[in-house]
Amino acid sequence: MSGNRGVVYVGPGKVEVRDIDDPKFEDPRGRKIEHAVILKILATNICGSDQHMVRGRTTAPEGLVLGHEITGEVIEKGADVEMLDVGDIVSVPFNVACGRCRTCRNGDTGVCLTVNDGRAGGAYGYVDMGGWIGGQARYVMIPYADFNLLKFPDRDRARAKIRDLTMLTDILPTGFHGAVKAGVGVGSTVYVAGAGPVGLAAAASARILGAAVVMIGDYNKDRLEHARKVGFEPIDLGSHDRLGELVANVTGAPEVDSAIDAVGFEAVGHSGKEQPAAVLNQMMEITRAAGSIGIPGLYVTEDPGAVEESAKTGNLSLRLGLGWAKSQSLHTGQTPVIRYNRQLMNAILYDRLPIADIVNAQVIGLEEAPTGYETFDRGAAVKFVIDPHDAIAR
Amino acid sequence: MSGNRGVVYVGPGKVEVRDIDDPKFEDPRGRKIEHAVILKILATNICGSDQHMVRGRTTAPEGLVLGHEITGEVIEKGADVEMLDVGDIVSVPFNVACGRCRTCRNGDTGVCLTVNDGRAGGAYGYVDMGGWIGGQARYVMIPYADFNLLKFPDRDRARAKIRDLTMLTDILPTGFHGAVKAGVGVGSTVYVAGAGPVGLAAAASARILGAAVVMIGDYNKDRLEHARKVGFEPIDLGSHDRLGELVANVTGAPEVDSAIDAVGFEAVGHSGKEQPAAVLNQMMEITRAAGSIGIPGLYVTEDPGAVEESAKTGNLSLRLGLGWAKSQSLHTGQTPVIRYNRQLMNAILYDRLPIADIVNAQVIGLEEAPTGYETFDRGAAVKFVIDPHDAIAR
Amino acid sequence: MSGNRGVVYVGPGKVEVRDIDDPKFEDPRGRKIEHAVILKILATNICGSDQHMVRGRTTAPEGLVLGHEITGEVIEKGADVEMLDVGDIVSVPFNVACGRCRTCRNGDTGVCLTVNDGRAGGAYGYVDMGGWIGGQARYVMIPYADFNLLKFPDRDRARAKIRDLTMLTDILPTGFHGAVKAGVGVGSTVYVAGAGPVGLAAAASARILGAAVVMIGDYNKDRLEHARKVGFEPIDLGSHDRLGELVANVTGAPEVDSAIDAVGFEAVGHSGKEQPAAVLNQMMEITRAAGSIGIPGLYVTEDPGAVEESAKTGNLSLRLGLGWAKSQSLHTGQTPVIRYNRQLMNAILYDRLPIADIVNAQVIGLEEAPTGYETFDRGAAVKFVIDPHDAIAR
Amino acid sequence: MSGNRGVVYVGPGKVEVRDIDDPKFEDPRGRKIEHAVILKILATNICGSDQHMVRGRTTAPEGLVLGHEITGEVIEKGADVEMLDVGDIVSVPFNVACGRCRTCRNGDTGVCLTVNDGRAGGAYGYVDMGGWIGGQARYVMIPYADFNLLKFPDRDRARAKIRDLTMLTDILPTGFHGAVKAGVGVGSTVYVAGAGPVGLAAAASARILGAAVVMIGDYNKDRLEHARKVGFEPIDLGSHDRLGELVANVTGAPEVDSAIDAVGFEAVGHSGKEQPAAVLNQMMEITRAAGSIGIPGLYVTEDPGAVEESAKTGNLSLRLGLGWAKSQSLHTGQTPVIRYNRQLMNAILYDRLPIADIVNAQVIGLEEAPTGYETFDRGAAVKFVIDPHDAIAR
Repeated sequence: MSGNRGVVYVGPGKVEVRDIDDPKFEDPRGRKIEHAVILKILATNICGSDQHMVRGRTTAPEGLVLGHEITGEVIEKGADVEMLDVGDIVSVPFNVACGRCRTCRNGDTGVCLTVNDGRAGGAYGYVDMGGWIGGQARYVMIPYADFNLLKFPDRDRARAKIRDLTMLTDILPTGFHGAVKAGVGVGSTVYVAGAGPVGLAAAASARILGAAVVMIGDYNKDRLEHARKVGFEPIDLGSHDRLGELVANVTGAPEVDSAIDAVGFEAVGHSGKEQPAAVLNQMMEITRAAGSIGIPGLYVTEDPGAVEESAKTGNLSLRLGLGWAKSQSLHTGQTPVIRYNRQLMNAILYDRLPIADIVNAQVIGLEEAPTGYETFDRGAAVKFVIDPHDAIAR
Repeated sequence: MSGNRGVVYVGPGKVEVRDIDDPKFEDPRGRKIEHAVILKILATNICGSDQHMVRGRTTAPEGLVLGHEITGEVIEKGADVEMLDVGDIVSVPFNVACGRCRTCRNGDTGVCLTVNDGRAGGAYGYVDMGGWIGGQARYVMIPYADFNLLKFPDRDRARAKIRDLTMLTDILPTGFHGAVKAGVGVGSTVYVAGAGPVGLAAAASARILGAAVVMIGDYNKDRLEHARKVGFEPIDLGSHDRLGELVANVTGAPEVDSAIDAVGFEAVGHSGKEQPAAVLNQMMEITRAAGSIGIPGLYVTEDPGAVEESAKTGNLSLRLGLGWAKSQSLHTGQTPVIRYNRQLMNAILYDRLPIADIVNAQVIGLEEAPTGYETFDRGAAVKFVIDPHDAIAR
Repeated sequence: MSGNRGVVYVGPGKVEVRDIDDPKFEDPRGRKIEHAVILKILATNICGSDQHMVRGRTTAPEGLVLGHEITGEVIEKGADVEMLDVGDIVSVPFNVACGRCRTCRNGDTGVCLTVNDGRAGGAYGYVDMGGWIGGQARYVMIPYADFNLLKFPDRDRARAKIRDLTMLTDILPTGFHGAVKAGVGVGSTVYVAGAGPVGLAAAASARILGAAVVMIGDYNKDRLEHARKVGFEPIDLGSHDRLGELVANVTGAPEVDSAIDAVGFEAVGHSGKEQPAAVLNQMMEITRAAGSIGIPGLYVTEDPGAVEESAKTGNLSLRLGLGWAKSQSLHTGQTPVIRYNRQLMNAILYDRLPIADIVNAQVIGLEEAPTGYETFDRGAAVKFVIDPHDAIAR
Repeated sequence: MSGNRGVVYVGPGKVEVRDIDDPKFEDPRGRKIEHAVILKILATNICGSDQHMVRGRTTAPEGLVLGHEITGEVIEKGADVEMLDVGDIVSVPFNVACGRCRTCRNGDTGVCLTVNDGRAGGAYGYVDMGGWIGGQARYVMIPYADFNLLKFPDRDRARAKIRDLTMLTDILPTGFHGAVKAGVGVGSTVYVAGAGPVGLAAAASARILGAAVVMIGDYNKDRLEHARKVGFEPIDLGSHDRLGELVANVTGAPEVDSAIDAVGFEAVGHSGKEQPAAVLNQMMEITRAAGSIGIPGLYVTEDPGAVEESAKTGNLSLRLGLGWAKSQSLHTGQTPVIRYNRQLMNAILYDRLPIADIVNAQVIGLEEAPTGYETFDRGAAVKFVIDPHDAIAR
């Protein structure tokens, strides 16, 4: 290790790259751990959920090292790490999970019961997620390494595909989870709300799951245009106030088999104002009877910056009666990445899932991260991949 | 057939037993049908969802013949009925379903696409459910009879167990669906909201599915006392404002594996006032991370009599952020009875599910139905079974 | 109707096109039925399972009208047909199913309990499958039409894609069922035994289900070459006696995630001799621990022409201990087409599944059928589609 | 630790209790491990699969310490054990599993990929299962303890129910797995082959899963009589050669919904001679169309002592064609105990599953183990629980 640096949240609207401590074999409670590895980070992405913090919409403390989308090379390992070696290139699920508790044993690693004293579920570099140090940095410590890490079978192939493989840490499994929970299968008609990176990943997931047609709705014209270019049907939400009609223009029917909410609580209504339940209500409207709705988009328990008073405590004005009349089911929560990342890795390695192009991955250096945050926050149709060791060919 | 009579809704708070037309081989659109049978009704129950109409909480038209929980004997059949014979004793799912459309082929008979011009899903004797004539009567017509009807294998055994078997038409499968969707399995800890007949049926279902412990919450002391008597753990919601603590008193933990909402939109908060989202919010609070919530309780798209303004259009103030943080899923809708009634019939016939006693079935004559409605509406711990031909031993 | 003609089995190795009776609204028991339609057949395929009969490997009676892969236009309908109209173009699942019995209600239409007096499950034009008249003909009767038939949403699009859509009647769902039961998903490595039409359909199914790599094994070099051309990895079984090594040459590992037996009881061992258990034993050998094996290939209860004595009564010498040590599961049986044909139709109509090219569909006239049988029996890499009304552009 | 002693296999038909080494924090490869605990054993059972070894039907080496059904108290723990403490009472799944490999991540701990160099899957005290020392002893070492062990929530309740809880290590989950894989649900009719402890555990599992009626077939009259006493329907296989008729005597139909093979490869035919495929063929015969067959009974890859020549290499003469015609599926393999033991523990602790009485648990001292083996081998209707520290009240 040659001096660590990382992206630090320093206050609403502001991040900086600073020198940070080198990672240690120690958990957030100060306990020494032998089940961890230290990674030299090869790629680490800026995520839409980082934006929630940086916009000041959460209670994230200043000084937080950001970053939960981490791919790297093992450079040190603890005594209890049996299945990994120094030199292995690995993908890190954004979930921190122990692999030993009841929910982890069931594969629900998004709500691990032991890695966060405050609630179920841990993550790197994220407010209220257990205090694990983030990985938009040069080095990071990963606990329960044998369980958490996905090893790439071949170093050279991994390096050659790193722009794609880096999406395994979060957005690709997250989009995939949304599609799976929405019941997407071969021949499905699918609507994805939100043309940001998670929405595109959900759309790509729907496609590889065999969907007949995948629509993506947004107000952002650049993102819609990009979605169109990579093969999805763009739905311009600004062009009409009845989503069902826009959908019917594409498929002939106002309802879809499966709908995925890749927007979350910062949803905006047709008026242009924030309406946290707007997307969920649309989902129930356009999903067919007996259909399922996947909700990878983040909804929060507290949102002090919310426009609606009730939304400050996470209350949404939901037309649940509509969903009930249609016998729908709603599926929420953080994605348990580990359930999907191996199979998605295979799809990438065998050239079936060009996810980097689909989300428009752009590689930047670590020092460029603050500019990346700004550009992404303005709604650019891009997914920034930070390359902290200048290891990725550009 | 010797002159039909039935229970008729004549205005808010009021039902009467009147002479009604004899059933015909004709659907609500006036089309002649050969796939129907005429039943002589042997048992037909008063349901909590009938109460919603009778209380005037819906737009049910005056003159509606009520009743969707029907068990009877085939006395006539159309030319296309191949698998049933005159004399067969059969159970009628409350769902009217064609058995031929896309959702029926998938087993989602609660949202059949062809039997109701207004929306997905049909039922007998119910507002907005397709205009099929109800069965709190002496005779009724059942369409798509080969598909819809469950034939009891033995006439004598059927008659001997009719008080139990009559629950197959609605509340037992409805409670069972709630339990299944809530993920109840062997060893589960379960909370059921509502100690009315559907709540008790959900609790009985949880028990036969192997639940370790089943709690039922209500404010109604008579119903709680009955629940206790039939082997469930009563939770007196009036005794404390934190449900989690009441649950922990029983199990040692404030969360359960599975929660079932058997209350629906007429939910009442701790204040004693109607709060349509009160139960759903409690469900999210007390269900464990990665758990599922079954919602057999009815939520409506329009509720003109609602206390809250937003609830009039079916909007509920839901803490979805809480459910999201816990990775929960919510399962709504009418139960597709046909998916469960055969297996539940077997459980009854082999003496494994004494559902009549569990819901406290009381047999009454057809002419006593109005009194039954009143008594039930006052919250009596009872399920009324109407015996329109004085065929059931009392 | 203008005079019916059809392909008739006249003895081992021999079929002829003959004048046959016009279809009637009558079932094989002679009962008049109103739930049927008469179809003018637009496409009807020769199937590998027809070959079993024609080779004399079954007890098929002389005079049997062959054909169970039928696509056509409704030209007459019974009084009980409510959801179809004259002029509709429809796909016929090869399973005859009533849609009303217990197994049909569960979606297991391959083993309908009412359409065959001899055993569970019916089919058109097939020995021991209930006596329903086959559809390698100009006209055919289809019972329980509302339930059985899949209507194409648009006549013109249907006609334009008829070479693909005709595969919905059997081989595409059959291959798909095999892939689903074998647990194929996104990123899977898959091995398909047999490069005939069902094998190719299984491979195409695996691909649209998201498989990372799909291998097809056969001894027939033409079929292997065709498989390669349409994008699969050919495995030449004649080139090595250890299948695991051939698989490892492609993927680096001797086991696959999922294996599909598209060969069945006429399997041939490495020696070139018939060995009915050869393929199944290979499946257990190359499938990973905890994996599933899909067995759409036909195994029979009686095989009087078998080489091995025990196989004459359907006994196979299976290394089940091997499968047991690997915790595998085996999934057998006729495909319930109705479970899959709608979604596969959508995949075809939205240009995601070019199945006609994948199986090398060749359109021939009805009178050419006997030649088609001969060519196919010699192992040609082709799937013959009979066009009895010269309705398909060539 | 005060001197270890254990049950040792010393040759065909012979076991002895001997002084053995104290357990060490070391795996079979000699690697020091920190993820293990040492248990003082409170209960450890004799299993039917131990008998296979002791009868000399396997290649078990002399000197092998037997025992894979272990319940105990943690008396020492390695540095990497975070979720368990000295004094905890725990149940040990018979599977040794790492909790970190691909199959363990999926919950398939019966085929862990890392704990056995020879094949997938490890176990304590068993031939070919990785060399982990058995636990019919006073002390034992358990690796990957946080992952593998199930901690009982309360020491006193655990001790009071130890005769029941000891069945969580193997036979109860094994029977349960068989029932689950056979598709047993509420209202099912079930046939279990074999009235030994696993058969009784499968029957008990079927009952708590809601089965309407559970039949158990055997030739052993004592075992049948015991099965009857604990509430199951005994089927005396010696009384008739058509199982279907015996089943029909109970239920009125010759087929059941679900069948479970709790016998395995030492099956005996009606002739009284060993016929390794006899039970499997019966399962296919009596299971309904579209049904599933659970096969927890052990089938082996090599059986040098087999009566039939082909069975020596694990080949069985299976009527797979019959199963295929009925669209059945077959589910094999070691049970992944961890998937079921928590829920079954709850069922026991809440008095819903009196498994000790159902399998007729008899507690014996460690020195009595050889006598226990002999008695059990003679077919006694009993399950022996060894109490190596005289800790269980008798």
